[in-house]
Amino acid sequence: MTTPWQYRYALRTEGMGSSIIRELLKLTEQPDVISFAGGLPAPELFPVEEFRAASDRVLRQVGPKALQYGATEGYLPLRSLIVKQMARYGIQAHEDNILITSGSQQALDLIGRLLINPGDKVLTERPTYLGALQAWSAYQARYVTVPIDEDGLQIDLLEEALRAGPKFMYILPNFQNPGGVTLSLERRMKLIQMADDYGVPIIEDDPYGQLRYSGEHLPPLVLLDCEHLESRACDGHGYYTGNILYTSTFSKTLAPGLRLGWILAPVDVIKRCVQCKQGMDLHTSPFIQMVAYEVAKDGFLDKHVRSIREVYAHRRDVMLEAMERYFPAEVTWTRPAGGLFLWVWMPESINSAEMLKIAVEKYRVAAVPGHAFYPDGSGKNTMRLNFSCAQPEMIEEGIRRLGVVLKEQLAHQPHTEPVAMPVLA
Amino acid sequence: MTTPWQYRYALRTEGMGSSIIRELLKLTEQPDVISFAGGLPAPELFPVEEFRAASDRVLRQVGPKALQYGATEGYLPLRSLIVKQMARYGIQAHEDNILITSGSQQALDLIGRLLINPGDKVLTERPTYLGALQAWSAYQARYVTVPIDEDGLQIDLLEEALRAGPKFMYILPNFQNPGGVTLSLERRMKLIQMADDYGVPIIEDDPYGQLRYSGEHLPPLVLLDCEHLESRACDGHGYYTGNILYTSTFSKTLAPGLRLGWILAPVDVIKRCVQCKQGMDLHTSPFIQMVAYEVAKDGFLDKHVRSIREVYAHRRDVMLEAMERYFPAEVTWTRPAGGLFLWVWMPESINSAEMLKIAVEKYRVAAVPGHAFYPDGSGKNTMRLNFSCAQPEMIEEGIRRLGVVLKEQLAHQPHTEPVAMPVLA
Repeated sequence: MTTPWQYRYALRTEGMGSSIIRELLKLTEQPDVISFAGGLPAPELFPVEEFRAASDRVLRQVGPKALQYGATEGYLPLRSLIVKQMARYGIQAHEDNILITSGSQQALDLIGRLLINPGDKVLTERPTYLGALQAWSAYQARYVTVPIDEDGLQIDLLEEALRAGPKFMYILPNFQNPGGVTLSLERRMKLIQMADDYGVPIIEDDPYGQLRYSGEHLPPLVLLDCEHLESRACDGHGYYTGNILYTSTFSKTLAPGLRLGWILAPVDVIKRCVQCKQGMDLHTSPFIQMVAYEVAKDGFLDKHVRSIREVYAHRRDVMLEAMERYFPAEVTWTRPAGGLFLWVWMPESINSAEMLKIAVEKYRVAAVPGHAFYPDGSGKNTMRLNFSCAQPEMIEEGIRRLGVVLKEQLAHQPHTEPVAMPVLA
Repeated sequence: MTTPWQYRYALRTEGMGSSIIRELLKLTEQPDVISFAGGLPAPELFPVEEFRAASDRVLRQVGPKALQYGATEGYLPLRSLIVKQMARYGIQAHEDNILITSGSQQALDLIGRLLINPGDKVLTERPTYLGALQAWSAYQARYVTVPIDEDGLQIDLLEEALRAGPKFMYILPNFQNPGGVTLSLERRMKLIQMADDYGVPIIEDDPYGQLRYSGEHLPPLVLLDCEHLESRACDGHGYYTGNILYTSTFSKTLAPGLRLGWILAPVDVIKRCVQCKQGMDLHTSPFIQMVAYEVAKDGFLDKHVRSIREVYAHRRDVMLEAMERYFPAEVTWTRPAGGLFLWVWMPESINSAEMLKIAVEKYRVAAVPGHAFYPDGSGKNTMRLNFSCAQPEMIEEGIRRLGVVLKEQLAHQPHTEPVAMPVLA
């Protein structure tokens, strides 16, 4: 037996930390476990038949082109479709402002490569998306965090964090993963103003923007930035030149197995992203891009998103109602207006990692302990619940079981005080 | 008009250099240009009908699974197929030694992320694969180079280069891109011995290994390493534990538009690669992996590779014969036993970048100037020719035109001496 490579050859270790969630997800793969742990879209909603027809069409009509090397920028008709889709939200952009990425995870990796020098600070919400931390820790980022409440990032705490000199801010304004919260319009305006004042760009990550189940659509930061900067954010030829890098994905509207996302950015940033992406994976599969385009075009995507909204809205409601019924009074949670997740705060006496180990082993129900989403390692009494993947009756039963575990945990802690609520009245 | 991002926000610039080839490839896309510039497989050979049937089957049978998030390690049956395929070359490995990557370009990026700290030296052949330089320059690698001749890396010059203390060696032993040369068995043995003596691991990049048109198959470095290390390179349970990280791809045997490659490495390295890949793109599309597996299985891949070999061997022969006929005596080139490329040395008075600009503009024929493949920026009198993509009659005609340009160039240089040949008798 030889010495492992990592000792022989000094493998780099930055950003190799968190495999907590992966380990946990393995446990939850057993068929009798009700899992709220993943971030999976409901597979029964995938438009499989449309994908089958589209694959067939693409291979029959342009097979050799679909299977050959392609442009790093991405398939032009797909980029045009994205431009048109974003124009409905008032975003004025050009195909040259768009790069197709291998999932929006790759967009985050690209952003890290372009912007982060070792030791640079990144400002994030607290909690924030684990995949972003994973991408940027590899570039040796450090984190400055601002807590969220039901209206998203607590904007009155932002200025202090900005004084730490972050390279950029990372914001999920809509139905944040993991918090489920949405940044209010007032806060969006203030955020844009402060980004401009401090000269700190914003990475706007919007994977769930189209999945709103209640309340009014709010303008994306990239649009507010254009309005704020007025003539400065558009060069008069339809090219976006503002302060925001916007990223989104087809993972939640079509299917995550495509691995298709995009980044919207000023043309000079896109050019640099293209150079980076060449070194990373040359380009994203033209076959997959063409198939996604064929499925999405002619209004199918819109129609399909409407049906997803209906199903997920119902599941969210079932979960929230069950939580009211089964969860002890000491526990609080967010009421998301969209997306896939909600967030739970428990009394500080509860360690969610320990509790959820018991939950999966004894009660066959799973959720993700919240501390993985805290760049500072706090959040030990929190957890994330996914409501998109399980069937309604399973959601009801799973929440009932979680309620039992919670009550059991609290019964073992005789001096439990009601939790100091960071959110909600 | 605002200030470009790169000035406002100090974008990182490492490894953003070379877009030479991309710019050139754009020129060559005009339909009347005969192009030897790309590295494209012949699209008329892609098994389009098989892909159509396989996509259909995958989506009908396991559609939701194919379109859902998947394991970072890759689709297990595809990894098993790779293990079996490599076993035929005597390589003893386990599925856990394999990670599926988004093309072998991503394997190179992963290797860079795992191994290269800023300023680390990487030992490469000279010339070498441009994509590797692009991947690793992003990690601020520096390069130590060893020239090639018709038998590959000049092994008698290796020891001096090893004394510079490279972190790893990067070797393309079979039908090297761009040189077209193959490392002889004797040199392979010496290389393995020296890697062990100096404790420097080898990255073996083998995209073309199956595309041999003449001569005998030579054992891959990973196999020679196992034999050299004997019990040290295998732990007795079928797991590879040696000094080589081996990477290959389905781009040249099935289709590059899949973006499917793999890395073979000791299990502890694969585990770290998996963590890195999560931050990069979570995982490669399960749909694409399943489709590739469905096409490749039950012997189709072998049968298909045999037909590719036949076509490319003929095209290589046509190109070599035409070069004998049309190229001036001062020019020399390699005679590849496989792969997609051959390499041309011209008299030092010729600047290939300038010459090839004239070639494409005036004579409508394209090739890649060689200096992009030299980490030290030399090689200005060299070029790379691809013989896999053009039809035989176009190869003949394109070489005739290149011959005209070469003679024209030499006619303008009255004092031309025959080129000092680094290769061939």
